[in-house]
Amino acid sequence: MQGQSQQQAYDRGITIFSPDGRLYQVEYAREAVKRGTASVGLRTPDGVVLAANRQVSSPLMERSSVEKIHKADDHVGIASAGHVADARQLIDLARRRAQGEQLRYGQDIGVETLTRAVTDHIQEYTQTGGARPFGVALLVGGVEDGEPRLFETDPSGTDYEWQAAAVGGDRDTIQGYLEEHYREDLDIDGGIELAVRALSEPEDGVVDAADVDVATVTTDDESFRSVEEDRLESIIAEIDTEESDE
Amino acid sequence: MQGQSQQQAYDRGITIFSPDGRLYQVEYAREAVKRGTASVGLRTPDGVVLAANRQVSSPLMERSSVEKIHKADDHVGIASAGHVADARQLIDLARRRAQGEQLRYGQDIGVETLTRAVTDHIQEYTQTGGARPFGVALLVGGVEDGEPRLFETDPSGTDYEWQAAAVGGDRDTIQGYLEEHYREDLDIDGGIELAVRALSEPEDGVVDAADVDVATVTTDDESFRSVEEDRLESIIAEIDTEESDE
Amino acid sequence: MQGQSQQQAYDRGITIFSPDGRLYQVEYAREAVKRGTASVGLRTPDGVVLAANRQVSSPLMERSSVEKIHKADDHVGIASAGHVADARQLIDLARRRAQGEQLRYGQDIGVETLTRAVTDHIQEYTQTGGARPFGVALLVGGVEDGEPRLFETDPSGTDYEWQAAAVGGDRDTIQGYLEEHYREDLDIDGGIELAVRALSEPEDGVVDAADVDVATVTTDDESFRSVEEDRLESIIAEIDTEESDE
Amino acid sequence: MQGQSQQQAYDRGITIFSPDGRLYQVEYAREAVKRGTASVGLRTPDGVVLAANRQVSSPLMERSSVEKIHKADDHVGIASAGHVADARQLIDLARRRAQGEQLRYGQDIGVETLTRAVTDHIQEYTQTGGARPFGVALLVGGVEDGEPRLFETDPSGTDYEWQAAAVGGDRDTIQGYLEEHYREDLDIDGGIELAVRALSEPEDGVVDAADVDVATVTTDDESFRSVEEDRLESIIAEIDTEESDE
Amino acid sequence: MQGQSQQQAYDRGITIFSPDGRLYQVEYAREAVKRGTASVGLRTPDGVVLAANRQVSSPLMERSSVEKIHKADDHVGIASAGHVADARQLIDLARRRAQGEQLRYGQDIGVETLTRAVTDHIQEYTQTGGARPFGVALLVGGVEDGEPRLFETDPSGTDYEWQAAAVGGDRDTIQGYLEEHYREDLDIDGGIELAVRALSEPEDGVVDAADVDVATVTTDDESFRSVEEDRLESIIAEIDTEESDE
Amino acid sequence: MQGQSQQQAYDRGITIFSPDGRLYQVEYAREAVKRGTASVGLRTPDGVVLAANRQVSSPLMERSSVEKIHKADDHVGIASAGHVADARQLIDLARRRAQGEQLRYGQDIGVETLTRAVTDHIQEYTQTGGARPFGVALLVGGVEDGEPRLFETDPSGTDYEWQAAAVGGDRDTIQGYLEEHYREDLDIDGGIELAVRALSEPEDGVVDAADVDVATVTTDDESFRSVEEDRLESIIAEIDTEESDE
Amino acid sequence: MQGQSQQQAYDRGITIFSPDGRLYQVEYAREAVKRGTASVGLRTPDGVVLAANRQVSSPLMERSSVEKIHKADDHVGIASAGHVADARQLIDLARRRAQGEQLRYGQDIGVETLTRAVTDHIQEYTQTGGARPFGVALLVGGVEDGEPRLFETDPSGTDYEWQAAAVGGDRDTIQGYLEEHYREDLDIDGGIELAVRALSEPEDGVVDAADVDVATVTTDDESFRSVEEDRLESIIAEIDTEESDE
Repeated sequence: MQGQSQQQAYDRGITIFSPDGRLYQVEYAREAVKRGTASVGLRTPDGVVLAANRQVSSPLMERSSVEKIHKADDHVGIASAGHVADARQLIDLARRRAQGEQLRYGQDIGVETLTRAVTDHIQEYTQTGGARPFGVALLVGGVEDGEPRLFETDPSGTDYEWQAAAVGGDRDTIQGYLEEHYREDLDIDGGIELAVRALSEPEDGVVDAADVDVATVTTDDESFRSVEEDRLESIIAEIDTEESDE
Repeated sequence: MQGQSQQQAYDRGITIFSPDGRLYQVEYAREAVKRGTASVGLRTPDGVVLAANRQVSSPLMERSSVEKIHKADDHVGIASAGHVADARQLIDLARRRAQGEQLRYGQDIGVETLTRAVTDHIQEYTQTGGARPFGVALLVGGVEDGEPRLFETDPSGTDYEWQAAAVGGDRDTIQGYLEEHYREDLDIDGGIELAVRALSEPEDGVVDAADVDVATVTTDDESFRSVEEDRLESIIAEIDTEESDE
Repeated sequence: MQGQSQQQAYDRGITIFSPDGRLYQVEYAREAVKRGTASVGLRTPDGVVLAANRQVSSPLMERSSVEKIHKADDHVGIASAGHVADARQLIDLARRRAQGEQLRYGQDIGVETLTRAVTDHIQEYTQTGGARPFGVALLVGGVEDGEPRLFETDPSGTDYEWQAAAVGGDRDTIQGYLEEHYREDLDIDGGIELAVRALSEPEDGVVDAADVDVATVTTDDESFRSVEEDRLESIIAEIDTEESDE
Repeated sequence: MQGQSQQQAYDRGITIFSPDGRLYQVEYAREAVKRGTASVGLRTPDGVVLAANRQVSSPLMERSSVEKIHKADDHVGIASAGHVADARQLIDLARRRAQGEQLRYGQDIGVETLTRAVTDHIQEYTQTGGARPFGVALLVGGVEDGEPRLFETDPSGTDYEWQAAAVGGDRDTIQGYLEEHYREDLDIDGGIELAVRALSEPEDGVVDAADVDVATVTTDDESFRSVEEDRLESIIAEIDTEESDE
Repeated sequence: MQGQSQQQAYDRGITIFSPDGRLYQVEYAREAVKRGTASVGLRTPDGVVLAANRQVSSPLMERSSVEKIHKADDHVGIASAGHVADARQLIDLARRRAQGEQLRYGQDIGVETLTRAVTDHIQEYTQTGGARPFGVALLVGGVEDGEPRLFETDPSGTDYEWQAAAVGGDRDTIQGYLEEHYREDLDIDGGIELAVRALSEPEDGVVDAADVDVATVTTDDESFRSVEEDRLESIIAEIDTEESDE
Repeated sequence: MQGQSQQQAYDRGITIFSPDGRLYQVEYAREAVKRGTASVGLRTPDGVVLAANRQVSSPLMERSSVEKIHKADDHVGIASAGHVADARQLIDLARRRAQGEQLRYGQDIGVETLTRAVTDHIQEYTQTGGARPFGVALLVGGVEDGEPRLFETDPSGTDYEWQAAAVGGDRDTIQGYLEEHYREDLDIDGGIELAVRALSEPEDGVVDAADVDVATVTTDDESFRSVEEDRLESIIAEIDTEESDE
Repeated sequence: MQGQSQQQAYDRGITIFSPDGRLYQVEYAREAVKRGTASVGLRTPDGVVLAANRQVSSPLMERSSVEKIHKADDHVGIASAGHVADARQLIDLARRRAQGEQLRYGQDIGVETLTRAVTDHIQEYTQTGGARPFGVALLVGGVEDGEPRLFETDPSGTDYEWQAAAVGGDRDTIQGYLEEHYREDLDIDGGIELAVRALSEPEDGVVDAADVDVATVTTDDESFRSVEEDRLESIIAEIDTEESDE
């Protein structure tokens, strides 16, 4: 077992290996992700759903300014958890890469290709000195050749493809909920409902429509679209009804 | 809990993550913000109000030279709290970006776009080695497409949009006052009054017109304008009257 | 013998020699390799077989996204063990080198030449300051002038040619199994069977077809090809039959 | 409260924040300013007066070579306190900027603009690694659009505008004297007298004309001019008379 | 005598002098050489012989991949001992230099000139910061103007010319054997025999033909040539015969 | 008061401020100056005199090779004290600047301008990281517009103008002697005599002509000229006579 | 006096001043010189003599490969003591400078000019960070304008001119011998004899002709020439005779 004082030795300066082959700065960046509120993503046959908690620290703060789901391109959305300013850098990188693809080749960038561009950038910050890793995890969801795709990026620069995944605070609880309730044949509204329920799992009761940010990229028009608050409210209302029924 | 000696380990050299995922240098930069006198910003339907305490250390110092509210462009003003010389760098950056937009596209830069340019710059100083973070928080207020907008930037490079916000020393007290008294339908003079009252909250009695710097960007002409001292005096006089009435 | 506190002294900053002539950062990178799941490669007269464990941390994760065998060129595949994001950098490097050879000389890059390009890159990261070594071992398998070739790269930047080799967790157990059971006259299916058996050695029973990723580069068409799950299942079924027979 | 050993931790390497949001290297640079002999500046309707103690360590040293008041441009003078070689760098920067303005636009640089060019340079040395802050404070005095202006720069890169200010050793005593005796309607000779009296305050009796360096920038001809020793002597003689009268 | 804790002080960061004028990083690199298996080189009137132990860690490893004798140019071979990946960098450097000579001047590079190009490169890594020394010793053997030449390079960047030399593990034992048995009038086969006997000295009995890598550069055709295993076997057989005779 | 261990903290890495505003590396460079043998300079109406002790460590050393007075240009000489190799760098810089002035403007560089070029260079090495300060003090003497000028440069990059000054070992004793005996109306020979006497002050008796290096720049021809040993001997002889007379 | 632990503090990282104004890295480089075998140089009216001990660690090492006297140009030779690989860098630098002079100006470089080029390079490595000083001392001997010249360079970058000098191990003993026996009117053979005797001084008896490397640059043809072993033997034989006579 590694004592605390030894751990410190591997944190200073550049990111280097510990005697047991770990990169502590990357592991600490994962802790930064856990300090953020959770985001959820899932795939349905009709498209991808991204959802995120957004809690504001004051009633005077504009809810939109803690938005944690961003459009990266017409056909791709990104949800994040962790260090907010770091997330913005990666999302901007994704946007520039998507635009570059449009400019150079006149076509939509693949969701996997886009994710790799982001994780390559993340990896570089874990190996070369003079910078710290990115303290953020992303869920990159979109439609590629008519198929919904969902990827996660982690602070080591690894990417994973998921049917349904959670990142950020309470990740284990939420992921457990997804594993229990996810079905491959959900429709979009079912997907939104599951995402909201999953985000609500660590809380008492279902989250308010106002406290959650939801977006979809559907296969029919391959377009990123924020789910409006009233639609969200009616879905949540239905959940409440069901729950009272139980 | 982190002991003091461990904390020190994460402060040396470049900004790196602590084992619990925090960036201490960024948190210490937030302390530098708290060491500054407070600034307040708020939105009314008729425009944005920015207000700041300005206390001079000697009666021979020109009050204008501790000005903490700056014109970034015709339609945008910036109030600051924290390390003064750092603030000037960011305000100069904002001015250059606003001018660049005018030169290249012949149009006003959006308030949100301008804020992002600033926070991108701030974030870079928290990730790449060889420099410290900026020890300053800004309130960026302006009019965009006829709508008043108000943003805050923090030392991590995150931005938030607000209806009304305070930064700097006694922030919690002042923000609490704003949360209690802010109404969306204030007119500009009401906004100025509220800003002055909020800044006065940590003090005994209302601050002097001379000790406060107030500016507005109104929707009618989309122009940044300092509020002159006599107008401020008459507004403050009114406050005093009301207070005696109570 | 070297005490723990002395070891630490040689880990900070750049990769330097210890008094007994060792490079601790490289040795720790080897530990990172051991933390990964195992990969196996072997040569048969008919081609090269690469096989790797792929365990997913959640049933909702796409198995393909933890793929540990990658096509580097039409005639070369690469299996990896260790730090996943590091592996991807080296595989991308290999792809670019293979493509460059095609573009410049219109011919397939040699398997040995390709491996050397990778190990040169790895070595540089062990000698020059400002970066850490790569925490990954690769098995590079392909066909060169009609002959199957199999190389290993290690974190020091050394390469070895093998008839059959294992890298990653439980390497010693798996390599021992290979040494005992490898025969030079295996056919491709026999090679796949041996690879699967070897990967299963540290486990109880034979691994599931779903938990293993297998690919071949055969001499007849010099093409990298993933082994489909049903073919794998029938091979594994046969193993089970044999084992019950024993 | 911060103990001595903790303070040290924030002094090494680049300038970084302490846990309470301070920049110790900048604060220590302020100590370097206090180690220098004092300089004084003040504004009168007829122009700006700059005055500085200049004590020579040997009767064989040329008094002019410890000159602490420098002409930056025809219409601007600069007095300094602190690290002499650092001061020269900043004064040279100011001269180059003033000349640049003449060359490019054929006009005098504004006193405030010139001061900002200097403080921008100072701030950079407090944020970017690889250098220490400037250990010097300047008083920049001149005439701009017919108006006398007086600015102070401090080691953090902040500038302040003053009616009358002191920098360097015994600053508090001298500034206290200025606050008590400064009147806005002083004529130039009255300004020189006040400056000399203020510099004399920490001493017993009035300083010798030979031990003080005085210069003016008057509004009539907007020209920097050193006050000659005999004129200074007659002013000091008058002071002595008055004092004996008291 | 230097204590262990003091020694550590001179190992960190760049290669610097110890108080008694030593470069510890270079001395530790020499330890890395000793950790490698031995190589031997010797000169006969008919050419140069290079020989090296090559032990494989598994029967499945291709013996050729632990080859420690490399052709640098048609007329020059290089044997190495120590850090394998470092050796490859130096051998590649030697090849590029030899090719450059051919391209630019259309002639064979001199063996001494080639060795110097390598040792200049090695020396640079012992003086300039940001890198560690090369942990390898080379034996560079070839024919120059019809004469066989043999050079050694060490980790300090020094080169020595030899009649017969050993580098790597058990160097002292092997060199002692060479000093006792080397004769200037050996023919090539005698040279090969001596080299094999010398390498066998630290072992019990003579090494297997399979465990040794031998190459020659002969004066008649000035060509580097690996000695084939069967020729080696017959030479070793003869040794055994002689030994039984004794 | 600062203890020894605290002092050390401010010496490592780049030159930074101590809590009391000092630059220890610069102060230590001043100690390096004191470790050198002394140099003296003085002004007479007829020109500048430079004189320096030059002691050789062996009778076989050429006295000229420890020369400490150098011609910088036809009309400027430089004497030095401290780190000899550092001095040569600064003298070379001065020569290049003087030549540059001749090439660009066809005129002699001013003595003050030349000194400033040197001190700017010195100052840079005290502020920017990655180098140590210069461990040397110079006396720059020459004729400018017909007037003799004498400047000192110190390791902080400050320059002073003097009538007569000493630098290096025993500076205080020698400067005290100069302060007591210097007269403004000395002729050149009187100046040389005073310089030799001053250098002799810390010794018993007058220094030998062979142990002292003397040069002049006279106003009549504005030319640097070494004082030949026989002229020096006759001056010293005269001193001895006078002293015996006393 | 400085304790050992304090000394260490000034050795890490770049070369910096100690509190008493010393550069420890330079002093340790001088220790590296003392670890080398000695070299001797001396001037006679007919030319310069350079001589050096060359001991080989094995009878199989080519004596020529530990040569410590090198031709820098037709008219200049260099002997060295200390770190061999460092010496080669400086000698190569000297050769390039000498060749450059020939190419650009078609003339022999002066011995002093050449020495300065070398010492400038050495000095730079003692002041700028990121490298260690050169651990070598050189004796540069040659003919300039018909005159024999002999210079020494030390690790600080200082040069000295000598009639006769020793560097390296046992320097004091050898220099003492030279001081006692050197005469200005030696002929070349007398110079060689004295050099050999001086090198023999720390040993019992006279060194073997084979263990010493001697070269001359004579004034008649201004050519560097190694002294052949038989001529050396006859000179040494004569010494032995004389000694037996005593």
